[in-house]
Amino acid sequence: MTHATRRTVMAGTLAATAMAVTRVSPASAQEDAGTRQTPGYYRYRVGDVTVTAVTDGVNTFPLPERFVVNAPREEVAAALIADFRDGATLSVPYTPLVIETGSRRVVIDTGNGEAAFQSSKGAFGQFQTNLRAAGIDRAAIDTVVISHFHGDHVNGLLTPEGRPAFPNAEILVPEAEWAYWMDDGAMSRAPAGRLQDGFRNSRRVFDALARKVTPYAWDKEIVPGLTALGTPGHTPGHTSFLLASGDKSLFVQSDLTNIPVLFARRPGWHVTFDQDPVMAEAARRKAYDRIAAERTLLQGFHYPFPAVAHLEKTTVGYREVLVPWNPVLR
Amino acid sequence: MTHATRRTVMAGTLAATAMAVTRVSPASAQEDAGTRQTPGYYRYRVGDVTVTAVTDGVNTFPLPERFVVNAPREEVAAALIADFRDGATLSVPYTPLVIETGSRRVVIDTGNGEAAFQSSKGAFGQFQTNLRAAGIDRAAIDTVVISHFHGDHVNGLLTPEGRPAFPNAEILVPEAEWAYWMDDGAMSRAPAGRLQDGFRNSRRVFDALARKVTPYAWDKEIVPGLTALGTPGHTPGHTSFLLASGDKSLFVQSDLTNIPVLFARRPGWHVTFDQDPVMAEAARRKAYDRIAAERTLLQGFHYPFPAVAHLEKTTVGYREVLVPWNPVLR
Repeated sequence: MTHATRRTVMAGTLAATAMAVTRVSPASAQEDAGTRQTPGYYRYRVGDVTVTAVTDGVNTFPLPERFVVNAPREEVAAALIADFRDGATLSVPYTPLVIETGSRRVVIDTGNGEAAFQSSKGAFGQFQTNLRAAGIDRAAIDTVVISHFHGDHVNGLLTPEGRPAFPNAEILVPEAEWAYWMDDGAMSRAPAGRLQDGFRNSRRVFDALARKVTPYAWDKEIVPGLTALGTPGHTPGHTSFLLASGDKSLFVQSDLTNIPVLFARRPGWHVTFDQDPVMAEAARRKAYDRIAAERTLLQGFHYPFPAVAHLEKTTVGYREVLVPWNPVLR
Repeated sequence: MTHATRRTVMAGTLAATAMAVTRVSPASAQEDAGTRQTPGYYRYRVGDVTVTAVTDGVNTFPLPERFVVNAPREEVAAALIADFRDGATLSVPYTPLVIETGSRRVVIDTGNGEAAFQSSKGAFGQFQTNLRAAGIDRAAIDTVVISHFHGDHVNGLLTPEGRPAFPNAEILVPEAEWAYWMDDGAMSRAPAGRLQDGFRNSRRVFDALARKVTPYAWDKEIVPGLTALGTPGHTPGHTSFLLASGDKSLFVQSDLTNIPVLFARRPGWHVTFDQDPVMAEAARRKAYDRIAAERTLLQGFHYPFPAVAHLEKTTVGYREVLVPWNPVLR
């Protein structure tokens, strides 16, 4: 896997700065309705909270040699083919969330950013377009919660012009993540390549926001009903969330797995993006064992849209069972 | 299971005539976008053909004593619970299709009808609303293909006023189905209850259309690219379809199963709506064995929206694997 491919896979980590000026116009809600895909949002309730899953799109790219670092490419291809995918490519979806709880309108993770919409020819970077289609005004978002600092989660914090994409929102970031990526010593020790790029991109994004963020600690309620849970390994400060309302709850896993057909089914497989894959696997198994046993509802950033599922325990891991689509919001 | 419950389950077979005059307004595309569910359509391509799956909604009702006629209710409830459903109720979705092939715009099955939208308080009877959201004008539909004459497939042929819901469409019906339900002798021999209701409803619908239909034979291309395949048992003329374009194909199963979590997983289970359950099971097993072996794409009327899946063979039956959502129509 070449470095260039890795960058492509990381979906616009630095692409924003070098992006083509050609503009792909997001279709308006009415334009060409007869030939367009349906708008990419889906609503459901967790107790009194309304959750809106909003797709940022799907990145499709040739299956890299080492997408799974501890399994041969042909074994990964076979797993994809067994699930009726084409074994030559990978498709990775991105699903940011909006949760509306009482008077709060909270976004969890921001996708690849509108700049990526241009550079990917509309394949991803769709979050703002779909948010608009869902009737949600970006200016009405009062809180953005970030799970970790990879580009597909933080690049959507900025407009293509480098301004705040959510102008009225407080930005909450995991304090362990902030401490790591803002540490100049850690940056100076990082090898060139993805890790160094990660430091540079984190600074690009947060410097543009004048580093105006609110770091949050784990095991605390950071927004009413939303508790931050440390699930480090994928990155040093990687965070999942538990949303609770009445007797209902939702586990928002962030990147505890990449696509479930590979990493939920085979939790021992390590995705190339995991910074500490052994720690990531331990966090994954611990959370997934509990989710499966307690039949908790799960929202997965890289799950197929609308990315809400349960987990069935299997002999070798877990199988995701997508929640049946409900055409009416009750 | 009472007769009244059976009628409810059959979703408006005769309810249209007795429906309340209270009107529930379908929401417009822009109205209350911030609190509504996303429009219920989903597009994909099969070769050069554009397929639009359009939900008619979901009917949720208490799990009847004999929804599966050859398994105890508690076993059915356990199967639902194992799939993370509530074991006390059943939710049955309806998914009519639009296929656009060359200059033809074809609807396959019509859902419960707009009258049911009122009587179900918006839970189902949504086909026309979602068709509009998809940018498809009912007047532009030139062909309606009916798979069989149950109410959830034919009632949408009429508006609540009893006029043609697709004013410019030729209506294609299976000739075996037409012969059976229009046979006065067969009607006179039918016991009171669901079967007699089926005769009465078929006549209600088709008499309102002045019986202007075109019967079609099995194993023939009835629209360019669309071949009718006899899969009788569910009803005497029950029909599935194979859509082919280039080297791509799609098997449109109609009611070869009701909800897959019960009847694909356990193909020996017989749904209460099967008229000849043994024949229906034989048709199901024959088609499903081939679909699983050939990895054919499948569209299932009672599958969870968008109802497009593959079939994985298991030790006791088949497991549906929904196609991952593609947010962009390519």
